[in-house]
Amino acid sequence: MNKGISIAGSGNVATHLAKAFFDAGVRIEQIFSRNLSHAEALAQKVGARAVDRPELISNDAGVLILALPDEAIEPFAAEVNAAGHFDGIVAHTSGTQPLSALRMFENSGVFYPLQSFSRFSNPLMKEVPFCLEAVNSETLQHLTSLASLISENVREVCSAQRAVLHLAAVFACNFSNHMYAISADLLKDAGIDGSILKPLIRETANRLTDIHPALLQTGPAVRGDGSTMGKHKQLLENYPVYREIYKMLSNSIVSAKEKTKK
Amino acid sequence: MNKGISIAGSGNVATHLAKAFFDAGVRIEQIFSRNLSHAEALAQKVGARAVDRPELISNDAGVLILALPDEAIEPFAAEVNAAGHFDGIVAHTSGTQPLSALRMFENSGVFYPLQSFSRFSNPLMKEVPFCLEAVNSETLQHLTSLASLISENVREVCSAQRAVLHLAAVFACNFSNHMYAISADLLKDAGIDGSILKPLIRETANRLTDIHPALLQTGPAVRGDGSTMGKHKQLLENYPVYREIYKMLSNSIVSAKEKTKK
Repeated sequence: MNKGISIAGSGNVATHLAKAFFDAGVRIEQIFSRNLSHAEALAQKVGARAVDRPELISNDAGVLILALPDEAIEPFAAEVNAAGHFDGIVAHTSGTQPLSALRMFENSGVFYPLQSFSRFSNPLMKEVPFCLEAVNSETLQHLTSLASLISENVREVCSAQRAVLHLAAVFACNFSNHMYAISADLLKDAGIDGSILKPLIRETANRLTDIHPALLQTGPAVRGDGSTMGKHKQLLENYPVYREIYKMLSNSIVSAKEKTKK
Repeated sequence: MNKGISIAGSGNVATHLAKAFFDAGVRIEQIFSRNLSHAEALAQKVGARAVDRPELISNDAGVLILALPDEAIEPFAAEVNAAGHFDGIVAHTSGTQPLSALRMFENSGVFYPLQSFSRFSNPLMKEVPFCLEAVNSETLQHLTSLASLISENVREVCSAQRAVLHLAAVFACNFSNHMYAISADLLKDAGIDGSILKPLIRETANRLTDIHPALLQTGPAVRGDGSTMGKHKQLLENYPVYREIYKMLSNSIVSAKEKTKK
């Protein structure tokens, strides 16, 4: 790993990765974005050169990380390949795109950080699980060494498992966040400050251990408390969508409980 | 507040409250449970006397806190009242029962800690929001002083608001936990260690700030990424309930986004 890395993308994943590698002392050669000013803004922060065309990707870097939107990965890779300058490892950071999206390169891989990066937060990179996959063991080893420079949680995950992981993350995170949003709506309409729920939300997430979350389930559905559920459905009378969600999730909690008993 | 308190109940709420008051130097007179050995186990830890019949509740305490299941509150209160020994403040800890459940007492109130207490965790009591309500201002003041001994987050919340708060907590916490449980099921079936999602779950909960959670929404639904949602629905082919939940919540996320735009 004497050569540095280049990163295609200037969004949240690209930014958090570039900064983490920079902080870990990895040389960053180029930052690519079709929008040159976006590339320049990030490149400046990590001592890299900004480029705005795929054919400008040079061979200075040993690894090119594609932190691009899903649909942009394959077309971008094809353009870099057509230019013929880069002969190192090419890896994308997508949870859903298969390894084969990069099949035009001899040494390709997946470099998927299982975390939600946003402008609003700064997750500890060393705790982020990096899910790696590669076409050959040498590439896998190289990507493993690279990921280990910034994270203590690096593992090999095949494309099929990665697809399930991404789906599971939608439930555990995107849908949880939507639950927070619904509760914020209800509180707002009742004139209650939404921050009152934060300690409870944090506790619910942080108390997860190695036991199955179904065993930590609390609330009226798992208690079979029909009286409280009836009151809740009444309170949701003017929220038809939330009412249906309430019913469906309560039923699912009851089914899950019956399954656990068996 | 020269007199101590008594607590009816020996479950998670009773236990966490009793310990917090004990640690704060509040004298705990009696612990009631219909199961004497349960009462004794908790009483021993907090230097109190154990009783197993409502008529044994003495007047030594100034406040009697009913940390009982919802349906047990009114009958228990009626029995204590019928015995006629206790003439202090009586308050229950329920999120759903109205203040009027204790109308037989002159000085009654609600002492609702908005937190999920379990055997598995130990939430910081000083961060727990205590939602108080009382029939008169003197009682409210007394309960406020008492709650402030163990929490820095004490507020007055009327019965109607408390009902919405409890409903919102079901969405934000019980339903989120069910989302964690679904994701754990999916991972288990794919042979993936469920703990891999913990950093992402914690980040999703801990990054909540004062802005509306809808603005922090990520994932395929809010991006309008139909291709990924199609793949996810295929992966859920053998999980009919989870598939319906996936569709309903994705649609709701899309509607919420459209509402935010307006």
